[in-house]
Amino acid sequence: MNEERLVAWLGRRAGKGRSPGGTGGIGGIGGIGDDTASLPRFGGRTVVTVDQQIEGVHFQEGLDPAVVARRLLAVNLSDLAASGAVPRHAFLALAAPEEFDHPTFFRALLSACRRFGVTLAGGDLATSVFLHLSLTLIGEKSPREAPLGRDQAKPGHRVWLGGTLGESAVGCWLVAMGARFRGAGVELPESLSLQGGVRTAAARAVRRHLLPVPQLELGRWLAALGPRRAGAAIDVSDGFAKDLHRLCAASDVGATIDAEALNSSTPRSFAALCKALELDGAGLVESGGEDYILLFTLPKTVSPPPRFRAVAIGVVTHKKRILLSHPTGRARRLAPRGWDHLAQRG
Amino acid sequence: MNEERLVAWLGRRAGKGRSPGGTGGIGGIGGIGDDTASLPRFGGRTVVTVDQQIEGVHFQEGLDPAVVARRLLAVNLSDLAASGAVPRHAFLALAAPEEFDHPTFFRALLSACRRFGVTLAGGDLATSVFLHLSLTLIGEKSPREAPLGRDQAKPGHRVWLGGTLGESAVGCWLVAMGARFRGAGVELPESLSLQGGVRTAAARAVRRHLLPVPQLELGRWLAALGPRRAGAAIDVSDGFAKDLHRLCAASDVGATIDAEALNSSTPRSFAALCKALELDGAGLVESGGEDYILLFTLPKTVSPPPRFRAVAIGVVTHKKRILLSHPTGRARRLAPRGWDHLAQRG
Repeated sequence: MNEERLVAWLGRRAGKGRSPGGTGGIGGIGGIGDDTASLPRFGGRTVVTVDQQIEGVHFQEGLDPAVVARRLLAVNLSDLAASGAVPRHAFLALAAPEEFDHPTFFRALLSACRRFGVTLAGGDLATSVFLHLSLTLIGEKSPREAPLGRDQAKPGHRVWLGGTLGESAVGCWLVAMGARFRGAGVELPESLSLQGGVRTAAARAVRRHLLPVPQLELGRWLAALGPRRAGAAIDVSDGFAKDLHRLCAASDVGATIDAEALNSSTPRSFAALCKALELDGAGLVESGGEDYILLFTLPKTVSPPPRFRAVAIGVVTHKKRILLSHPTGRARRLAPRGWDHLAQRG
Repeated sequence: MNEERLVAWLGRRAGKGRSPGGTGGIGGIGGIGDDTASLPRFGGRTVVTVDQQIEGVHFQEGLDPAVVARRLLAVNLSDLAASGAVPRHAFLALAAPEEFDHPTFFRALLSACRRFGVTLAGGDLATSVFLHLSLTLIGEKSPREAPLGRDQAKPGHRVWLGGTLGESAVGCWLVAMGARFRGAGVELPESLSLQGGVRTAAARAVRRHLLPVPQLELGRWLAALGPRRAGAAIDVSDGFAKDLHRLCAASDVGATIDAEALNSSTPRSFAALCKALELDGAGLVESGGEDYILLFTLPKTVSPPPRFRAVAIGVVTHKKRILLSHPTGRARRLAPRGWDHLAQRG
């Protein structure tokens, strides 16, 4: 059973055989396929997200414990960013081999927590063969703010990207080739012999992959628009195509994406880097994953301020298919390719 | 670094370099060594706990996914029971090998959630080599209720046990010897050739180990006493001696435990079972662990109603040592032996 099917199966069980008080079972308030759940019992203002990072699955063995810690928090904060919540409390479940450098890990985690105003409020420690981390984040938002979430896209909305796609996937490839993050700088494998602007783009890609920057400020701006002026939001973690399909499915809409706008949203150096490394840049933009930027929709009358450098890439449609339209007039369906958490890369 | 030292190191970092707003870093509201954290931002009524269960560490390979699910929830609910909170929402991080039987696991988890009024509100799924589960539970309590927690014991309080000790450790040993839980019954390894009452006690021990019953009702009763009539509470997970030491350290007190009362708190069949299996019953009572019953203190004027079958086993003292006193007048210090999550069994 792949992830989508399992999540759908769980969704079908929601409400089945629930106790008379309406409690128990799976809630209609989020469910296991969503990135965050809003708890209505607390006035709809408490937002919870849980995410895990596993050595050998989400990051490679031997990654600096300080980078593991900063990445863990950033990836989880990205989920909260898509809900527009202010992060408040973190709860860590850490299972690590005996030789794991706990002090380095916790120093980095606490420092990152302070930077984002998060309190590490509790946790659980265990020993295991592989490093395994699971973080629960609790955030707050006002009930007057926009709900955001995947199901708020409306036909006619513009589709926006909060940052660039594909760089993280190239960074992931570079790390697999031997790139490392040391101190404040990136060490690239000598075998690649990259020079000049391409070398800078490669270092940037590694940084984007290992230390993503959660778009919390953008999420807060979207939430502050209020329910009538905002739309849907999701953070791109499993690949643009897959996460766009999820957003459209949850909102019961389709989308037409402008291929030129999508390609021009990446820096020019990205194309040069992909060419030098013989990587399929367009494919990585579409479904590379782990970009941790916001994909959101807004009514046509609303645009994010320039400081967010967000790019409009398409429109939400009544028709439920998701198209990639080219300036020549050609259009092709965008397949929901990307990361499946219950399989290898799809 | 063992668990106690790591937790102490983390505690010393609390408050260091915190941002001016008082947010960030480790909170003084729980911390990573505590079983639950109460979030003051929400009026002190939201209680959060996180706990992980790892194949090969907390349970053996090949355990029925339905038992894994029920045990995961029960162990986490036991932490909430010690805080006196009403469980509300669960968030699951599940990492499992590809062949894992997700439907059996989730059917059992959802059924157990319904039984306890818990809504599975979100989660994260991943693939991994070993089965790894981490559950975050969010509960509620009224700010008028007793705080309970480890730090509320006062000299003169009586020390109480909410159930029996040692049976779970014998059950753990029986499972390692080949005992299994199938359907509603326990299958014991034939090599042990246990008969009659001893056989019944063995089946009960296996059940106690695999399917502990969280003492939520007892926790709610303690919380309802209010701050002036209640005391401290902790759930015995890492062994009675170790958890009593933690409770006394957090409350800055000592305790004198009546060895006879402690021994008579176990059923008579337990002694017969330990004798038949050549196990050190008294040692397992003191530090076997995974008992998941409440250890609590109350003013001498307050006693739990008989339906809880709680047993008074000693008194809280000003003097900070923890003694086990025998009817002969002899007394020995109770060593803080038990489970260390960052080492093998201590």
